[in-house]
Amino acid sequence: MEHTEGQPANKAFTEDCTKVLNAVSDALYAIGGKWKLMIIIAMARGNNRFTDLQKQVTGISARVLSSELKELEMNGFIVRTVTAGYPVTIEYQLHPYSHTLEKVVGAMTEWGMQHREKIRSERSSNL
Amino acid sequence: MEHTEGQPANKAFTEDCTKVLNAVSDALYAIGGKWKLMIIIAMARGNNRFTDLQKQVTGISARVLSSELKELEMNGFIVRTVTAGYPVTIEYQLHPYSHTLEKVVGAMTEWGMQHREKIRSERSSNL
Repeated sequence: MEHTEGQPANKAFTEDCTKVLNAVSDALYAIGGKWKLMIIIAMARGNNRFTDLQKQVTGISARVLSSELKELEMNGFIVRTVTAGYPVTIEYQLHPYSHTLEKVVGAMTEWGMQHREKIRSERSSNL
Repeated sequence: MEHTEGQPANKAFTEDCTKVLNAVSDALYAIGGKWKLMIIIAMARGNNRFTDLQKQVTGISARVLSSELKELEMNGFIVRTVTAGYPVTIEYQLHPYSHTLEKVVGAMTEWGMQHREKIRSERSSNL
């Protein structure tokens, strides 16, 4: 097997690309979609009850929020605690692992703000 | 309207949360979904033809790749050039605007790699 002969530069190029694609694909698999990051962000800012989350994450239905919360819990991003009492209190907290997402959220927030600004200025210059 | 009275701290808190959620929502709207970032990454690494992109972005169908390319072009992330000749050559290049996504891609790559490592070590410790 002559890995280094032939097109070594091209090969390294492709492998690097594949590595990055795999990593981003893994990330998208875990936290992609329309809602997971939004729920994590809302929770990081003190929305810990189902109704608070539904209010904060605009447009999410109760059915979808419920299934997203289950997935996030199953994958270790959040912790659900039930406190006995009348009525029973159910709260959701971020698992410390969610904080590893800070850089991703930061980069997306920054880009989203710039992008909105760009769209806005393009629109106003087209008026 | 007494914006600053009542619960000023809470209000700032909520507004900040809403700002971040709006920004991330804008970002997800523009580059969310399973494929757009993957296509941009593959293109940034020299895959400029339809068939190269389809080979590099594992699992994408020709139909989906075609519609994703159209959307990316419409939203100013990529440029499609047709070169006369026999046969006609069609190439896709990143528009410089796509490079504003570098931090997002970098953060997601790093996180995806760490996440894969975590899943792997959890699996092997469960054997």
